Amino acid sequence: MTFDMSGGLHRKDDSMSALLTIGSTAIDTIETPTQRRENILGGSVPFFAFGAKFFTQVQILSPIGTDFPKEYIELFTKHGIDTRGLLVQDGLTFRWTGRYRKNMNDRDTLETQLNVLGSFDPVLPEVFRDTPYIFLANGAPDIQQNVLNQCRIPNLVVADTMDLWINIARESLEKVLQRVDGLLINDSEAILLTGDDSLVRSGRKILTMGPKFVVIKKGEHGALFFADNAIFAMPALPTENVVDPTGAGDSFGGGMMGYLASQNFKMSGRTLSSDDVETFKTAVAYGTVIASHTIEGFSLEPLAAITRQDVDHRLAQLRDILKF
Amino acid sequence: MTFDMSGGLHRKDDSMSALLTIGSTAIDTIETPTQRRENILGGSVPFFAFGAKFFTQVQILSPIGTDFPKEYIELFTKHGIDTRGLLVQDGLTFRWTGRYRKNMNDRDTLETQLNVLGSFDPVLPEVFRDTPYIFLANGAPDIQQNVLNQCRIPNLVVADTMDLWINIARESLEKVLQRVDGLLINDSEAILLTGDDSLVRSGRKILTMGPKFVVIKKGEHGALFFADNAIFAMPALPTENVVDPTGAGDSFGGGMMGYLASQNFKMSGRTLSSDDVETFKTAVAYGTVIASHTIEGFSLEPLAAITRQDVDHRLAQLRDILKF
Repeated sequence: MTFDMSGGLHRKDDSMSALLTIGSTAIDTIETPTQRRENILGGSVPFFAFGAKFFTQVQILSPIGTDFPKEYIELFTKHGIDTRGLLVQDGLTFRWTGRYRKNMNDRDTLETQLNVLGSFDPVLPEVFRDTPYIFLANGAPDIQQNVLNQCRIPNLVVADTMDLWINIARESLEKVLQRVDGLLINDSEAILLTGDDSLVRSGRKILTMGPKFVVIKKGEHGALFFADNAIFAMPALPTENVVDPTGAGDSFGGGMMGYLASQNFKMSGRTLSSDDVETFKTAVAYGTVIASHTIEGFSLEPLAAITRQDVDHRLAQLRDILKF
Repeated sequence: MTFDMSGGLHRKDDSMSALLTIGSTAIDTIETPTQRRENILGGSVPFFAFGAKFFTQVQILSPIGTDFPKEYIELFTKHGIDTRGLLVQDGLTFRWTGRYRKNMNDRDTLETQLNVLGSFDPVLPEVFRDTPYIFLANGAPDIQQNVLNQCRIPNLVVADTMDLWINIARESLEKVLQRVDGLLINDSEAILLTGDDSLVRSGRKILTMGPKFVVIKKGEHGALFFADNAIFAMPALPTENVVDPTGAGDSFGGGMMGYLASQNFKMSGRTLSSDDVETFKTAVAYGTVIASHTIEGFSLEPLAAITRQDVDHRLAQLRDILKF
């Protein structure tokens, strides 16, 4: 089926819910208290994409170096992720080495090599400019703004950020916040951004900075959702099988946004209808479920090994846990 | 209605679900970043009792000094709490002074005066020895054992503890754990008790130490429930209206145990039926709701001001938040 939309643009159904993410692709080296893995696929874009792939067509825009292993590109393709925006740049791929502490929550960055990520200024391929769902993964706010300038008719734009940008690029970040529908942010970063020690007050304060909704990620403690007329908490699925938490937050975002895209979700204003709240609850629940899979292994391995049926099975478990 | 039970003992219906708590009654002085309140009613027993009073007949066993204000005794009576076990001892009432930090989660103890609590060795009045529901609030494990020795036919015994006893009386605490049905414990104390950095593994490990169920309290992040064949998470109700968190954990216990008592709940073994899990979920949800009221004001003020209808109204809100 094709139909006419926005001045003669023809779209097939599957592109109506296409989801584009822009950010980093990394080669990670991860140390946990019991294991060490070198040169594994990481970065916000792969984790987001693998979280979203169960729900909708995923496009990625991310720089890689000439050293990027071919088998990782094939992994994207094998899982139906559109790799036309995986742009080979002159240089080496972004590298990150981290070590998790005994509690598997706190981690220390041992080494960061920005490499091609350092000079990345994304130009959206023409085919991506009409993509309706946009996720600006953690990255320099100036670049996030550049991307937004190139997007033509997004239904929903959500951004992530981190302490670095709050500290060194706050003005630009505040401009991003005024242009996005939603913000995904860690608990400690929400507090840093607002200067308020209360997570709940922080969530509400961020709403006044622009976003129509905010999701605060609390790791093992789950997530908090805020909109002007709605607030809810979602616990994480209790698990003792934490192998590697890397990517939990990004894949959470992928699950959440992937579901929203699959529902062709659009915000009509700042006030949510009860249907909207239901959609967001299910989206945050899917994010929670995806993250619970991510941490059960290294890199994309868990998300590459499961099916939508596995995801839905665990969603039913989460629903059951929360029902009383 | 009366009926015969356990060798000719006659009981009225209301005593079938009576709930006895043993622990401290305190005169608190509380400093928050914005307010200071002196000589207000505190301690584990008052908070527990006021959390449980909405659900069942509550008995308390706790030492007070000759200085204990008469109006506080009248407050118990006014709310239907059986004060026959509020035992006036020679000396002053236990006093605690604490200061909350800006985040309202961390607090520093400024002063502790044990006073009559230091020498308290409870002798259960005869009328309390057949009480079916027992909550051993935080206290010396030797004393918790002494109390258990005096209980005749409890349906359910739950204990709380704290870092102090884990550090200085571990052997005695381990004996208590082998004699209780359930343990209520803070997150940091669960980790201290097991030596395991994972809360989920800690919960499971505590089950191997005796209790048939464990509830780990995580403050603003809610609670985790563990039994041999069940595990669930319950988030706290998101609120920015935190006036004074003192007593949240004890009143949580009161709401939880009060509901279990009102259902005449009994564990038939270590394995929970699906009905049992439902009962525990509702109990933990009531605990969550009660705690959410407690923190909205100082001392027992919020719990003294609300009705069972208010509690049930907020329970419905929590149920709605968690349903998707």
